[in-house]
Amino acid sequence: MRYFEDMEPGTITHSPRSYKVTREEVIDFASKYDPQPFHLDDEAAKQTFFGRLSASGWHTAAMTMRLMVETMQDGEPQAGLGSPGIDELKWIKPVYPGDEIRIEMEMISKRRMKSRPDMGLTRSENRVYNQHNELVMRFIGNGLIKVRDPEAPIEDEPAA
Amino acid sequence: MRYFEDMEPGTITHSPRSYKVTREEVIDFASKYDPQPFHLDDEAAKQTFFGRLSASGWHTAAMTMRLMVETMQDGEPQAGLGSPGIDELKWIKPVYPGDEIRIEMEMISKRRMKSRPDMGLTRSENRVYNQHNELVMRFIGNGLIKVRDPEAPIEDEPAA
Repeated sequence: MRYFEDMEPGTITHSPRSYKVTREEVIDFASKYDPQPFHLDDEAAKQTFFGRLSASGWHTAAMTMRLMVETMQDGEPQAGLGSPGIDELKWIKPVYPGDEIRIEMEMISKRRMKSRPDMGLTRSENRVYNQHNELVMRFIGNGLIKVRDPEAPIEDEPAA
Repeated sequence: MRYFEDMEPGTITHSPRSYKVTREEVIDFASKYDPQPFHLDDEAAKQTFFGRLSASGWHTAAMTMRLMVETMQDGEPQAGLGSPGIDELKWIKPVYPGDEIRIEMEMISKRRMKSRPDMGLTRSENRVYNQHNELVMRFIGNGLIKVRDPEAPIEDEPAA
């Protein structure tokens, strides 16, 4: 099991596979969660700067989460306790049916929690690329992770 | 049609309905996009601080987007051009099967784009509450919106 102590800022991890975006799934997700015409209908999408049918940004985020879970489960399991939130999410380019997306997760920083010595906070930049190696989305993910040795002193590190 | 000029910082809009979170949908979403045991399995969830099966945070975000689209479509249509991204997303409390969530969208600020006089940027704080009126999620949404009169001078407003 990988604990807080095992996390190394600067480490970059790649998803073990890419995710193929299908037209059927784009329309299914948008019908349920983002029923704006340019995510549902070819003709409506042509009238927008997307140019053609594209995935909801929240669908791209969901597919990215799938790749993040697979990336984390690919190696030794992490003692993860969930995420308090994310920062600076940017939808940079549209994701279209037929695209294949992959991710890079870069650990930026980590710090122990003074209020919960058994937990640490990590910050990662998660980058999503399409098959042309164009950056389509990025965000900062915050994570909570168990500390292996909660008795160890908490060093004064710069706030993550 | 509501254009950039019609947006009033300080305005709060409420979703016209709440969204009932079902166990079936929680498991279906998690199976596709966030297959961590505490979003899939009652026993695994009991071992975590969630206490019982809870929705993926990305599922809560997706259901929130559905309510945002319905809120925007409830009144006069907006000349929206999509979103460049979001900031400061916080998952504050778990969302459980059986919960009913609703949203409040508060327009915080807006500014014209100097590089694209026909477009403006808006910032909104979107708050998600459950049936106990507990805040379960919040984030800042950035929006692009058409300007009715692109010839009008761009005033120097504080950056959004």
